[in-house]
Amino acid sequence: MRTVTYGAACSLDGFIAARDGAIDWLHFSRDVQGVMAKYWATVDTIVMGRKTWGDAVARAGSGGGFGGDPAMRTYVCSRTLDRIDAPGVELVRGDAADFVRALKKKPGKGICVMGGGELAASLLEAGVVDEVGLNVHPILLGAGVPMFGAMRGRVRLALVESRTIDGGCVLATYRVKASRPRSRPTKTTATTAAAS
Amino acid sequence: MRTVTYGAACSLDGFIAARDGAIDWLHFSRDVQGVMAKYWATVDTIVMGRKTWGDAVARAGSGGGFGGDPAMRTYVCSRTLDRIDAPGVELVRGDAADFVRALKKKPGKGICVMGGGELAASLLEAGVVDEVGLNVHPILLGAGVPMFGAMRGRVRLALVESRTIDGGCVLATYRVKASRPRSRPTKTTATTAAAS
Repeated sequence: MRTVTYGAACSLDGFIAARDGAIDWLHFSRDVQGVMAKYWATVDTIVMGRKTWGDAVARAGSGGGFGGDPAMRTYVCSRTLDRIDAPGVELVRGDAADFVRALKKKPGKGICVMGGGELAASLLEAGVVDEVGLNVHPILLGAGVPMFGAMRGRVRLALVESRTIDGGCVLATYRVKASRPRSRPTKTTATTAAAS
Repeated sequence: MRTVTYGAACSLDGFIAARDGAIDWLHFSRDVQGVMAKYWATVDTIVMGRKTWGDAVARAGSGGGFGGDPAMRTYVCSRTLDRIDAPGVELVRGDAADFVRALKKKPGKGICVMGGGELAASLLEAGVVDEVGLNVHPILLGAGVPMFGAMRGRVRLALVESRTIDGGCVLATYRVKASRPRSRPTKTTATTAAAS
C-alpha cells in the first residue's frame, strides 16, 4: 500500500500562508532543501485542492506536472472546476477520499497531499492519510490559511521524529494512528466501515 | 524586569481544549510534572482571561489563589465581570496589556499568562509577552479552543529549545523577538510607542 503524506511549512499558530497569501516568512534553508529532496524521491503523485492548485499556477505557471517534473502525476480535487488544461495534471471531481483510497491500492511510490487544510482535513477524517509532517517556523502570523481545516472527529497521531533545523524551525513527523469520527453522516460512516 | 510567559498544552492543530471543553486527551506524565514544578518555582503571578477563570473555578473551586497556593497572586482580566469573590484573586477591568506592562515593572518573580488564546493574542500584539511555551500533543482535535487568538500583526519568535517528552509530546520554548503591528488603531499605536 502506498504511503499518503500531508506535509507543510507552517507558522507556530498553524498557518501555511498569511491572510493575503504571503509566504515571505518561509525560511528556505539547506536543511529544508535536503529534507525535501529526500522526500520527493519517495513520491510520484501529488494530490491538491483547487485553491492550492490556483496558487501553484499563479506562482509557477502550469507546465507539465508539478514543478515542471513530467514524472510527477498531479491530481487536483475540485467539485467546481470544469477542466484543467495542463499536461500531467488531472481533475478529480468525485469524492477526494474515495479517489485517494483507490489510488493507494495501485502500484506506485508515495502520494503527497499538498493541501490545503480543507482537503487534508477531509482526507484525515476519512482515514486515508498515513503521515503528517510539519516544518514549524518561529513566527505567529495572527491569521491566514490554516494548515488543518476543521474536522468533526479527532485524529490520533504517533510522533515519529522531531528535530530542530536551521532558522529555529522544528521539523516534526507523525504517523496517523487512528481517526475517531464523531457524529458523521450515516452515509460517510458506512463508506468508512466498508473500507476499513 | 519580570518575565511574562504564555504557555499551554495543545493539540497539533493548535487547540488547548476540544470544542466541548474536553481535556481528556492531555497526557500528564512525570516529564510534564517535572517541567511544570520547575516552571512554577519561577512564577508568583498568574494572569488569565474570564473564560479561563470560569473553567478554573469549575474544575478546582475558587479557594485562595490559583491551585490553592496563597502565595500565587491571580489576576482575572475581564470587561464584563463585576466582581470576583475569591481570596487572592483580583479582577482587572482596564486594558490587560497596560496592566501587565505595569506589573512587569514591579518587583516580583515571573508572570504566567494562563490564557486563553484571546488574552494571549492581545498581550502578544501589545509586546508584553517575553516567552511562549507549548507542549504539543500528538493529536488533531479538529476544532476547539485555540491556543492563539487572531492577531492583526505578526510576532517574530526565536526558538529557545525543542525536545521530545513522554507520550510523543514536543515541548517547545520560544523567546518573543518582536511584534510587528499592522493597521492598528492610532490610539493603540500611540500607547505602544509611548511604552517602548
